[in-house]
Amino acid sequence: MSLNSLPTKQHIIQTHERIVPYINRTPVLTSASINQLAGCEIYFKCENFQKIGAFKARGATNAVLSLEENQRSNGVATHSSGNHGQAVARAAKLVGVKSYIVMPQTVSTVKKKGVEANEGIIFLCEPTAEAREKKLKEVVDQTGAIPIHPFNNYDVIAGQATAAKELFEEVRNLNFIVAPVGGGGLMSGISLAAKYFSPETEVIAGEPEGADDAARAMQSGKREVSQGKSIADGLLTLLGDMTFPIIYENVKEVITVSDNEIISAMRLMWERMKIIVEPSAAVPFAAVLKRKEIFSGKRVGIIITGGNVDLEKLSKLFT
Amino acid sequence: MSLNSLPTKQHIIQTHERIVPYINRTPVLTSASINQLAGCEIYFKCENFQKIGAFKARGATNAVLSLEENQRSNGVATHSSGNHGQAVARAAKLVGVKSYIVMPQTVSTVKKKGVEANEGIIFLCEPTAEAREKKLKEVVDQTGAIPIHPFNNYDVIAGQATAAKELFEEVRNLNFIVAPVGGGGLMSGISLAAKYFSPETEVIAGEPEGADDAARAMQSGKREVSQGKSIADGLLTLLGDMTFPIIYENVKEVITVSDNEIISAMRLMWERMKIIVEPSAAVPFAAVLKRKEIFSGKRVGIIITGGNVDLEKLSKLFT
Repeated sequence: MSLNSLPTKQHIIQTHERIVPYINRTPVLTSASINQLAGCEIYFKCENFQKIGAFKARGATNAVLSLEENQRSNGVATHSSGNHGQAVARAAKLVGVKSYIVMPQTVSTVKKKGVEANEGIIFLCEPTAEAREKKLKEVVDQTGAIPIHPFNNYDVIAGQATAAKELFEEVRNLNFIVAPVGGGGLMSGISLAAKYFSPETEVIAGEPEGADDAARAMQSGKREVSQGKSIADGLLTLLGDMTFPIIYENVKEVITVSDNEIISAMRLMWERMKIIVEPSAAVPFAAVLKRKEIFSGKRVGIIITGGNVDLEKLSKLFT
Repeated sequence: MSLNSLPTKQHIIQTHERIVPYINRTPVLTSASINQLAGCEIYFKCENFQKIGAFKARGATNAVLSLEENQRSNGVATHSSGNHGQAVARAAKLVGVKSYIVMPQTVSTVKKKGVEANEGIIFLCEPTAEAREKKLKEVVDQTGAIPIHPFNNYDVIAGQATAAKELFEEVRNLNFIVAPVGGGGLMSGISLAAKYFSPETEVIAGEPEGADDAARAMQSGKREVSQGKSIADGLLTLLGDMTFPIIYENVKEVITVSDNEIISAMRLMWERMKIIVEPSAAVPFAAVLKRKEIFSGKRVGIIITGGNVDLEKLSKLFT
């Protein structure tokens, strides 16, 4: 049954049990050279090795599995810049229903291919929030599919929380956990997981300067808008009305980073850790490097959110 | 004490105990989409996450630790296209002695930087086998350093064997283990480890077509030469007189692959597994894809040998 209130500790435990057969228990990696560079001990939870290449598999799987069979019989639908769309398509395929995925025309080829590989039916639209809401509404009206919001959905939030739950189970006594914030599904889930499973751990968000609505919302105490412009294309969305209050209450600070800082953090992770991370996934590490004084000598968990990049496109950054 | 005969089972067990404090226990990754593509169950032992980014840390560490203190007091030396040089420099630094590393002028920047980061003293030479032997002799004569051969050295072979030992400990009942062959240090080590720790596992080598001396040696029963030309720049060397007999006795087959096959296997690993592998490290997976009929439905271990690439250079392959 879908959640209609803030996930409790018990909800997140049940969520984890529900999705565990369908997701990877992703490894936690460390790197001596990265630690030396950052001046702290970093534990990277590698959700780039998650199903569909991103943590979004957790929330989407939970949301689809939580629907009653008669609710989901006409399929599920969503709009997504990429990873959530793939994740919903995969979850729908797991339970044998159709999925309809609205994506901006600018979406990367690899993310489009990922949806198609999971038999998702793609609808392209203009790359604006209005256009995709409108297209999604049309699709839902036509098909009777149930919309699965990428972040403003308590089942999605509970699903994303399990990434942090696993990290806390594997690495004790973390002083900090750091993750990126876009719409806030992951961030709100992680901050709840910290509160329930590791209350001594402080929760910090990394955010692109060009999409800094969360940083400003933490100051003003209300949701803000941003220009939504950054290489971290998974983080351009604004906080939702479900995610903002959770983040406002449980996140200690939002650190903003420039695109150049994101690119050099990403490059370090490729070169030193030998893992492929997408720009959005490099944001928390960029934040740790930018504000070393906060983390100095501490034990820091970082959620690496995903690794879905167009190699053609990204390669140009390295030449 | 350095080994002067074929490593026994007991030697490899002792080697593992000796080096384990200084190396990473690298993770074993699997990928549903890769398995589907390959038609078998592949367990990738990720030595690209090893210290210095390659399995070479194992053999070099063992060789340096196995020297008596008075033997190594004038330092150690080697020639290497890259990873072994870094590994020797790191091992020397661990025990507090100097290292002298002869490298071809064509070596990648990332590998040179890796040696320098470990305080290795670099000597550049022409990229030919003769030139590097000559330069190494000069360096050894001048410094009194002990040369650590990249593969024709039983301590190095015993060290490399531990990668397979760990994989056999973690994944039972492998039908095959596949690794690349260049000079044969890894391949001979792995084939001994299979014989001692998992005798039911068949050992297969992958080799670039442009450096196919091992494939031809398996046919002729004697060491052969090759043109030594491939994108897999870690595999251009010829088998040594210590490694060839071990391989001839214990390896079932050598599968050769073209540079195009290597590049597309590498690309699949980057895209699907989200890990950075160097061209040489993609050779065994390319071999499995090329000869699917051999591996169909089987449990296959693959050693991913390293991830040290110049992103600038490699990126061009993807554009």
